[in-house]
Amino acid sequence: MVSNNATEPLLPGSVDPNQKVSANVPHRRRFLRRVRSAPLAEFVPKDIAADGALKHSNSIFGELHSSFKKVAAFLAVYLGVGTVCFYFVRDDIKGKKTNGILDAMYFTVVTMTTVGYGDLVPDSFATKLLACLFVFTGMALVGFILSKAADYLIEKQETLLVKAFHLHEKIGPSEILKEVEKNKVKYKFTLVLGVIFVLMLVGAVFLAFVEDLDPMDSIYCVCSTITTLGYGDQSFSTTAGRSFAIFWILVSTIGLGQFFLYTAELFTENRQRALVNWVLSRKMTYRDLEAADIDNDGVVGPAEFVIYKLKEMGKISQEDISLVMEEFDELDVDQSGTISASDLSLAQTTEAKI
Amino acid sequence: MVSNNATEPLLPGSVDPNQKVSANVPHRRRFLRRVRSAPLAEFVPKDIAADGALKHSNSIFGELHSSFKKVAAFLAVYLGVGTVCFYFVRDDIKGKKTNGILDAMYFTVVTMTTVGYGDLVPDSFATKLLACLFVFTGMALVGFILSKAADYLIEKQETLLVKAFHLHEKIGPSEILKEVEKNKVKYKFTLVLGVIFVLMLVGAVFLAFVEDLDPMDSIYCVCSTITTLGYGDQSFSTTAGRSFAIFWILVSTIGLGQFFLYTAELFTENRQRALVNWVLSRKMTYRDLEAADIDNDGVVGPAEFVIYKLKEMGKISQEDISLVMEEFDELDVDQSGTISASDLSLAQTTEAKI
Repeated sequence: MVSNNATEPLLPGSVDPNQKVSANVPHRRRFLRRVRSAPLAEFVPKDIAADGALKHSNSIFGELHSSFKKVAAFLAVYLGVGTVCFYFVRDDIKGKKTNGILDAMYFTVVTMTTVGYGDLVPDSFATKLLACLFVFTGMALVGFILSKAADYLIEKQETLLVKAFHLHEKIGPSEILKEVEKNKVKYKFTLVLGVIFVLMLVGAVFLAFVEDLDPMDSIYCVCSTITTLGYGDQSFSTTAGRSFAIFWILVSTIGLGQFFLYTAELFTENRQRALVNWVLSRKMTYRDLEAADIDNDGVVGPAEFVIYKLKEMGKISQEDISLVMEEFDELDVDQSGTISASDLSLAQTTEAKI
Repeated sequence: MVSNNATEPLLPGSVDPNQKVSANVPHRRRFLRRVRSAPLAEFVPKDIAADGALKHSNSIFGELHSSFKKVAAFLAVYLGVGTVCFYFVRDDIKGKKTNGILDAMYFTVVTMTTVGYGDLVPDSFATKLLACLFVFTGMALVGFILSKAADYLIEKQETLLVKAFHLHEKIGPSEILKEVEKNKVKYKFTLVLGVIFVLMLVGAVFLAFVEDLDPMDSIYCVCSTITTLGYGDQSFSTTAGRSFAIFWILVSTIGLGQFFLYTAELFTENRQRALVNWVLSRKMTYRDLEAADIDNDGVVGPAEFVIYKLKEMGKISQEDISLVMEEFDELDVDQSGTISASDLSLAQTTEAKI
């Protein structure tokens, strides 16, 4: 057996014939630990490897950048089509009017965000149908934006935020990115909360000075708008007000949606973290040892231990493992129970023959 | 080496001394495969084990049942407090009135779901503040409901749905549950779509007959309500209408929210499935082999292979693995590089001494 004490083997019937390891185990182990880190750092965990951190982050920004462009394109098309449609049926929309194109765009935004003040309402069969169409597609678009765009803007701000938090400490960019990775959700949450506060303040000040609302009504209209409640007793009725509203309503309603998403994420993360801690602090029993021993050699190797614990944490399922094991069996051409270089060359030879 | 051909070892420097395996490899392998399946099936994958399926599902229902009760309790308290509050300030609410308590409850629901018709609007400082308070807490509550309650109702219906789909085939309850597990999101999506359609139909018929709206306005009001747009030009103005609206608005707005959630889930699942397929079909290279070989013994065991592939699929991160490996090092008392029964008893002895 590997260990030096006299304990009985765990599974006496299945003692592995491979276990004639050299006596000087700690030395071999130290060697393994050192060599092992190299291939591990090499493949997937670019977000951990210190020098790879920035490169990885660039690729994330690249990805986010492209999805941000997609979101911006969808939004532009939606607003464009909405404005044109509602401009053409402007005579079938009743309520307080200002400039024709501005009103059409304002109505599109108020509809897509489901604020629906009711200061402008469709007044014909076709216009009502059009409004129904735009509110459903608008909701879908807002959902799409929530899932993509905000992340891009926030990732860009995150690094600055961490820098501000740690201004007194001297840390490099890779440390910052590691810190961000660790507390990602917390930073996103803090940031979006700050953004919402600023947006509410700007909205309230604007309503008080440009739309001439008293302070309470300004705050009331801000709350009624960003929550998409939109009773409609207070809304934007001037040209300047509606121009401002087009951007402000879009950003602030999406901001609040993002805030609720991050709150949910924060809850999930905390619960997940509690589960991870519980799994890690739970004492390992002989039964666990037996269960974790996938290749049934009486001992639990590092890889087996990782799989066992990650399954307990709910991060991977038996279905995941079964799927991968099917491929393992295919690749293990010589049926040795392990994949070696010879399996790979055997597979190539077989392919070449076919 | 394990294999019978003459390929060079992958990592000549690190040939494992353990590899003097008996020549009759296939036989040993078959034995291992058989024994191995027992401990694996024993611990986590209750949702896969055929006879465990029903037991597992009961425990899920139990859990869902308790969170459904929690949701119902929160909702009841919110509606109760809202109704009492808005009943007491009913003179500070202007608009079309019917019964005092009914209006207060209707106003609470219209506010919490952010429909905000504007047929009733707060008309004093205190009432406006109250409405702001209720719309924010209402949004949070709706988010909470979306994350919990609907799943409960839908899981209950799911089994029936699968039964209906496969009426012609003879399958037992455990097969149904496996089928449900596999296409969970698709079933949830189909079901919620059906529920929304029925709710829209019921709402439109009700509005046409009880609120005397013409057919187009009924459909327009239904769309404007379930999307929480609520322009307010068409709303519920009779006693009967508002009594119906209290339940109908709640259920249908939450239903549409759930629909969008499931749509997003369906997208995510399809993308995840595509990634899994890509990772599984990707050809294994020598470089992959080296990277996957965690214990650096020149061959890739099943557990190492599973970890490598799951990392590639993005299901687990290097951070997860590092966390678990820290515990592995602690448990590996005799520093052998594996955890054996002797490690566990050594750990107990050490604890007893302390």
